[in-house]
Amino acid sequence: MIVVRTIADLRAELRDRRTGRIGFVPTMGALHEGHASLLRAARTDGDTVVMSIFVNPTQFDEQSDLAGYPRTEDADLAVAAAEGVDIVFAPDAAEIYPDGFATTVSVTGRIAETLEGAERGRGHFDGVATVVTKLLLASQPDAAYFGAKDAQQVAVLRRTVADLNLPVQLVVCPTSRDADGLARSSRNTRLSEEERARAVAIPRALQTVADAAASGIRSSDALRGRALDVLAEALIPLEYIAFVDPDTFEPLPLVDRPTLVAIAARVGATRLIDNTVLTPEPFSTTGGS
Amino acid sequence: MIVVRTIADLRAELRDRRTGRIGFVPTMGALHEGHASLLRAARTDGDTVVMSIFVNPTQFDEQSDLAGYPRTEDADLAVAAAEGVDIVFAPDAAEIYPDGFATTVSVTGRIAETLEGAERGRGHFDGVATVVTKLLLASQPDAAYFGAKDAQQVAVLRRTVADLNLPVQLVVCPTSRDADGLARSSRNTRLSEEERARAVAIPRALQTVADAAASGIRSSDALRGRALDVLAEALIPLEYIAFVDPDTFEPLPLVDRPTLVAIAARVGATRLIDNTVLTPEPFSTTGGS
Repeated sequence: MIVVRTIADLRAELRDRRTGRIGFVPTMGALHEGHASLLRAARTDGDTVVMSIFVNPTQFDEQSDLAGYPRTEDADLAVAAAEGVDIVFAPDAAEIYPDGFATTVSVTGRIAETLEGAERGRGHFDGVATVVTKLLLASQPDAAYFGAKDAQQVAVLRRTVADLNLPVQLVVCPTSRDADGLARSSRNTRLSEEERARAVAIPRALQTVADAAASGIRSSDALRGRALDVLAEALIPLEYIAFVDPDTFEPLPLVDRPTLVAIAARVGATRLIDNTVLTPEPFSTTGGS
Repeated sequence: MIVVRTIADLRAELRDRRTGRIGFVPTMGALHEGHASLLRAARTDGDTVVMSIFVNPTQFDEQSDLAGYPRTEDADLAVAAAEGVDIVFAPDAAEIYPDGFATTVSVTGRIAETLEGAERGRGHFDGVATVVTKLLLASQPDAAYFGAKDAQQVAVLRRTVADLNLPVQLVVCPTSRDADGLARSSRNTRLSEEERARAVAIPRALQTVADAAASGIRSSDALRGRALDVLAEALIPLEYIAFVDPDTFEPLPLVDRPTLVAIAARVGATRLIDNTVLTPEPFSTTGGS
């Protein structure tokens, strides 16, 4: 496994590998099993697997969150090597944002401006879209792999890739979960034992919603109520629970088509997000079959 | 010569040509000798020459300017064929901006916000940076060719390409001029005979500045005065004459390094721009040599 720090070195390493299929997994380090599952997907699909490690300062709205973001490069390189990564691209901030840097990729509309876009500030998805565009153009992979946990990030990046005609396939892998259902996240390491126990109410709330929808409840408000009960019992202050179209993030009052249910909540000082997609059976307005 | 209307067809045509060098010349049609000189440069350098024709609506601040922009596709295709273009990409607006399009590439700072950016509105260079990024990613050329007449556009695109790590070489070709010095522009066709005669004061003003600088005048204010005299004599209302660093567009009070002199003026109803770069001999503060 090769570790490179500059875009020029990355391109040089990739030059002779372009006859085969290149898969790219962008990360902010602090790798966990969720990242490993993305690396395995890229390894299965491709001839060359490139992973980046870059804690992107422009997508953090809170400097304390940026400063406190876990940085564990040695452990990350061990995970990458174990998963068969060929090239790790681990630049410093000056390589990505050199003096005079002045370009931003922005997505407008609900997918970038509501929910995470509203909570984390306008700059968050600008930061994500810009750095991912840069990383994709630096590596020029055939496919790039993202986790479904960051559903809104996925929607923003789908929009970016389609709108800019970026020649890459986005592959979205299922959210990786601990045995008790908690979505894996680099931020989970910040949870105390007591917080970790309460945090499981987030996936339980999503499961409660999914079960209720499967039982025939179609009203988003009614389903939201079920989730709120579960979270309230665990004393988890909700930031939002949204029922939206997975592509446009338009609110859906009725679950009569694929519906993204997205939750953000703070457990202690740690902000966690999770989601599920409800895919109801075809809905009949006549109540038949 | 093949004419394609969709990105998918463009990519299909280019698929088997990627072993050779691909040159790309983006245009808004209404081709003149200036465009032909870009096509010849691409033809000389490359194995495949791609030219686009797309009057990009997002970079026009005035709807009347967009509506009045000359559209001459048949004549343009004849010019392209004569210059040995291999593929013309001539999409309609819905191919470039389909329903739901929501992504913008923006450059901030003096290069995008002053002069043309101030006169034509903030959206102008956003529109340019976005559409050129899209066209470059749709065609993925080795090199793209631009005219030096649009000096600020070149600076914005250099910034965009560098900042987003777009894997393409920008080639800037000298401004093409009529025998009397007027910079060739698609807008020149709008000039009346009388306006056309007065418009030549713009390159004459630039030449006067260049001659004065060559004779040893270093003060931008003094040089500006020479240009203003020439333009006033021809009754041409100036929008701006700027002495700036060609890369950063920082104003330069003294021509002691390469200096872009950029002019915008209206001749009748037609807005024209032109520029020159002064490259003084090394400047000695001791008056020596």
